[in-house]
Amino acid sequence: MPDAATPLAIIILAAGRGTRMRSAMHKVLHPVAGRPMIEHLMASVAELAPRQVVVVTGEGRDQVERQLAGRASFAVQDQQLGTGHAVAQAEGALAGFAGDVLVLYGDVPFVSAATMRAMLDRLHGADAPAVVVLGFEPADPLNYGRVVAEDGAIRRMVEYKDADPAERAVTLCNSGLLAAPAATLFPLLARVGNDNAQGEYYLPDIINIAIAEGQGCAVISAADPDEVAGINSRAELAQAEARWQAGARVRAMDAGATLLAPGTVFFSWDTQLGRDVTVGANVVFGPGVRVADNVTVHAFCHLEGATIASGTVVGPFARLRPGTVLEEGVRVGNFVEVKAAVLGAGAKANHLSYIGDATVGAGANIGAGTITCNYDGYFKHRTEIGPRAFIGSNSALIAPIRIGADAIVAAGSTVSRDVGDGELRLVRADQLVKPGWADAFHDAMRRKKDAGRD
Amino acid sequence: MPDAATPLAIIILAAGRGTRMRSAMHKVLHPVAGRPMIEHLMASVAELAPRQVVVVTGEGRDQVERQLAGRASFAVQDQQLGTGHAVAQAEGALAGFAGDVLVLYGDVPFVSAATMRAMLDRLHGADAPAVVVLGFEPADPLNYGRVVAEDGAIRRMVEYKDADPAERAVTLCNSGLLAAPAATLFPLLARVGNDNAQGEYYLPDIINIAIAEGQGCAVISAADPDEVAGINSRAELAQAEARWQAGARVRAMDAGATLLAPGTVFFSWDTQLGRDVTVGANVVFGPGVRVADNVTVHAFCHLEGATIASGTVVGPFARLRPGTVLEEGVRVGNFVEVKAAVLGAGAKANHLSYIGDATVGAGANIGAGTITCNYDGYFKHRTEIGPRAFIGSNSALIAPIRIGADAIVAAGSTVSRDVGDGELRLVRADQLVKPGWADAFHDAMRRKKDAGRD
Amino acid sequence: MPDAATPLAIIILAAGRGTRMRSAMHKVLHPVAGRPMIEHLMASVAELAPRQVVVVTGEGRDQVERQLAGRASFAVQDQQLGTGHAVAQAEGALAGFAGDVLVLYGDVPFVSAATMRAMLDRLHGADAPAVVVLGFEPADPLNYGRVVAEDGAIRRMVEYKDADPAERAVTLCNSGLLAAPAATLFPLLARVGNDNAQGEYYLPDIINIAIAEGQGCAVISAADPDEVAGINSRAELAQAEARWQAGARVRAMDAGATLLAPGTVFFSWDTQLGRDVTVGANVVFGPGVRVADNVTVHAFCHLEGATIASGTVVGPFARLRPGTVLEEGVRVGNFVEVKAAVLGAGAKANHLSYIGDATVGAGANIGAGTITCNYDGYFKHRTEIGPRAFIGSNSALIAPIRIGADAIVAAGSTVSRDVGDGELRLVRADQLVKPGWADAFHDAMRRKKDAGRD
Repeated sequence: MPDAATPLAIIILAAGRGTRMRSAMHKVLHPVAGRPMIEHLMASVAELAPRQVVVVTGEGRDQVERQLAGRASFAVQDQQLGTGHAVAQAEGALAGFAGDVLVLYGDVPFVSAATMRAMLDRLHGADAPAVVVLGFEPADPLNYGRVVAEDGAIRRMVEYKDADPAERAVTLCNSGLLAAPAATLFPLLARVGNDNAQGEYYLPDIINIAIAEGQGCAVISAADPDEVAGINSRAELAQAEARWQAGARVRAMDAGATLLAPGTVFFSWDTQLGRDVTVGANVVFGPGVRVADNVTVHAFCHLEGATIASGTVVGPFARLRPGTVLEEGVRVGNFVEVKAAVLGAGAKANHLSYIGDATVGAGANIGAGTITCNYDGYFKHRTEIGPRAFIGSNSALIAPIRIGADAIVAAGSTVSRDVGDGELRLVRADQLVKPGWADAFHDAMRRKKDAGRD
Repeated sequence: MPDAATPLAIIILAAGRGTRMRSAMHKVLHPVAGRPMIEHLMASVAELAPRQVVVVTGEGRDQVERQLAGRASFAVQDQQLGTGHAVAQAEGALAGFAGDVLVLYGDVPFVSAATMRAMLDRLHGADAPAVVVLGFEPADPLNYGRVVAEDGAIRRMVEYKDADPAERAVTLCNSGLLAAPAATLFPLLARVGNDNAQGEYYLPDIINIAIAEGQGCAVISAADPDEVAGINSRAELAQAEARWQAGARVRAMDAGATLLAPGTVFFSWDTQLGRDVTVGANVVFGPGVRVADNVTVHAFCHLEGATIASGTVVGPFARLRPGTVLEEGVRVGNFVEVKAAVLGAGAKANHLSYIGDATVGAGANIGAGTITCNYDGYFKHRTEIGPRAFIGSNSALIAPIRIGADAIVAAGSTVSRDVGDGELRLVRADQLVKPGWADAFHDAMRRKKDAGRD
Repeated sequence: MPDAATPLAIIILAAGRGTRMRSAMHKVLHPVAGRPMIEHLMASVAELAPRQVVVVTGEGRDQVERQLAGRASFAVQDQQLGTGHAVAQAEGALAGFAGDVLVLYGDVPFVSAATMRAMLDRLHGADAPAVVVLGFEPADPLNYGRVVAEDGAIRRMVEYKDADPAERAVTLCNSGLLAAPAATLFPLLARVGNDNAQGEYYLPDIINIAIAEGQGCAVISAADPDEVAGINSRAELAQAEARWQAGARVRAMDAGATLLAPGTVFFSWDTQLGRDVTVGANVVFGPGVRVADNVTVHAFCHLEGATIASGTVVGPFARLRPGTVLEEGVRVGNFVEVKAAVLGAGAKANHLSYIGDATVGAGANIGAGTITCNYDGYFKHRTEIGPRAFIGSNSALIAPIRIGADAIVAAGSTVSRDVGDGELRLVRADQLVKPGWADAFHDAMRRKKDAGRD
């Protein structure tokens, strides 16, 4: 643990252009598991309770500042002069700050709080190193910069292109993340030069400068190399999403959910599933879904912002939108959309219905093709359906409206006025019968069709 | 082949707690391919025509007994004292039985009948071994118990933790399955002790006891190590499901079906597909589906208990529920649910309909948004639609009802009385026109909306 | 580049029976990415602007000739006497042709135009070889025929079964594709014998004949062995589809689309996606879809023949069929089908609707459950909805019909006559109220149900 007495500041670099994303949206705002990637990082950062978070932005800074307003301060890197230069821009925002600084990257959002803590622990551990670098050991070290170290003590940081064969054989790579006391970090940064092909100021240079001066620098290794995977393209975004989903599926199964086809179930960052929940193939959990025990979600469901009680069966082909609350034993079936509606215990809406801005009483039965007409083109209105009410098929309930307890709405009714408890409401014109008419029509149309063919 | 004169008894161990499933449902009842895993095993067992099947149960035994009632006898292992102890509990149920015994596991459900037969053949083969063990050679032998053997003759069974380096280098592992004459098995079991860390009676000990006495024991190897994969967690359940599905997809393609995206098609244990069947992406076949030749099932369909004749086109986004029969050339389109209904040759229900408890005549056309109102809140009723009838869009047919041959139901009609052959039924109120009303309404609402903003 | 002065003829072999497909459809017509496999090959061939394309057909030739009518000439191989014999059948169709000939295979459809060009370039390159063979280096050379070569000069072509160990160790395999001047190819072919176990005339024999005569033959290697993968079974068809889809997903992401779950998105050969398009899980793009920038296609959508403008949001669970045009900012929601319809800018159809053969004005709002009744059982008719019109829920619009600008159709109306601009149309019967009726009904039915149980 970082000494409770040592305050912590976080610097998050988010000034990169993200050109490879080919997007008008700032790279760090692209979502993973339904949440902007930088929010994943912010959540891990929050576990460390830092005194200050400084985000260094560049192009598209307004987008990032809007997202994180009130939760970070911002520094601007106007020119892309390298990571060392980027970190240096945060110095002003940290004026007077005397604790530890942890440097993170907005596009490396899945570093865990445990790893961050391990870096800070090392900073206050044996030999009190000047800087702690987070290394990682990828399956293929490619052309990552190498960390040449012995027993965790760094001998030299080297870019791949500058590395000799022995150095290239090193498998410990530089993630770019590092921790250092503010009092060490900024003076070192001030001495980094840009005498290189790109004319940039490189953050890892501070290590070599410190070592040259006889200061010790330490490296610790990320438990999982995927933790420090950067997201620079849509393909890498998709890979990050895939890794996140794979983890979430394992967690769900370990907790006692059956996923019939785990690879086809997509969770959001905040999905909660109970025990003995069965999830069919092809189910998408958008943000804000909580599912209690003993629930079945059949194939092809799309859920978002829904709270689902025990014993409920959903789908297949159901869509639950934000504000949906399904109480115990509710049944929502195929081609049914529910939005901002509470369905009481045991209520059923099994087929082809739209239940929006509504309260449905316990045990009510919503017939196939029922529509709550909640919108008049200008305002939304509510529908209240009493317990045990029976809404006949193909009915339209024009909100605002109240259907009483045990009431019956006859099939095909468009109901525009309240229905009392135990009342029948029937809205249906006379059955007009024309015997032989259809036969005559068929004859006429067949002749017309034949004529069209000539 | 086991000697036809040698009767066979099967012991299936199913007393494990299944704690890692975190489920109120007994482990062996969790389904794979839409069927409880133990039923897969029972189906293979049935191919051997055993004289007796004894299932050893423990916690949750009532669930297992209910599932297998009438097809097995049951023995109880009240305390979890090891596999040897579990098998010993079956002795009473086999009192007087003088043939071969095959020991299987309820959570190892995919051992093939061929493998079981090979074990029994070996028992009656060269040197008539006392016990035949089923070994397997996994990609990674991990810490499975090893079978030290030479030319199929076992030298020693050894737990991984007790194995020396040479034994650990052995790649033949113990599946736990074994076969032995009853007259050999139970006496050996009686001599197994529990002098070990767990204080349990281990079934494989009978091998070492037999060998020490100079009885020969043989091992044969499972053709495919996946055959003996145990299912102890939801993750292993998902893996078993995935393996089963992968096999089923290959079989379907070999038989002449095109799966546009095989990995997204999910079959049940009893799905039957004909030749030149095309299945789009994301199709789920629940139990009981039979599909004839030349059928197209488009993407996003969910089928269960449906019989589909040649030339039919289903989906996308169709749901066929149990009791659906589609005759030749039927077309069921998007957002259509069919349940307990027969659609005659060439009938069409292309859009947004619910056809339940119905008979639809050949060539009938079910318009978009048609609902058969089959439920009055208490009872289900049937709808009969004649051949070539035309049901206009957005109609509701209140069952019990009969629509005649060639009849026409006008769009938007809620039909509560039978319609005769060739008859037109029109249920529609007057068209009330209010010129300028909408313009005035828009003005008023815009003012109201603006006021709400102030 | 082939010398512009050298005309090119293509021979495509498509006479194989395709038995392993178990299909009534000719093998080369089975689609990949929504297009018959041979059309993929034809598209690459077209890039070379050949003077002639000769397709050699056998069984099922009428199917192939119908598909390619007007774009190729046809030769028939009545008997399956080998690839050499098949190519020889094309000689008549090429009578008088004096340029280069490239031999391709209808079931090897993904050879790129670049590879074909490289073969022709080589033919006119150093040493002017008599024949150029396309080799490939598969991950596992299996029992493919080997190309024994040195610096690209072929020493010997050898079938795997005839190869000695040294030859089997060669990893360069024969794809079967070759290029040669017509003046060289056909004389060589005439000398190929059928003195082998199968009694067939093998095309690769021409190489050994040429070499024996002192003519040089060259081999070039396919950049990617998958390019020359043959499709002989449904499983290989599925693999080709999977490879094609994997490539298409990467291209879409590189171009700036976010695919939330790339492996679940299926494209067609001609799908076009703009920048900042987000595609949810499980989306199927049939042929003919063009999507502009800044469009969101939510999960579970099925699109075909649709043109989608910027700012549009589609799905989840939407189906767009051919002829759909969504203008800027349109919203098509769940369980909505659109066919042959233009939705003007900002129009909304969010729930459970069928919009077919229609024009919907800008800003119009189509309520839940709206159906355009476009079919009378014989003819299709059009619906025109004016700008800013409001169609109340559960309405049926009986085409041909015109709904005016700013008009309102009240919920539940079945509209059979035009509605003027700014007009309200209300089609609704009286609200019949029966207080206490439902209570009495419930009592009666419960008694009946109880009676049924006795």
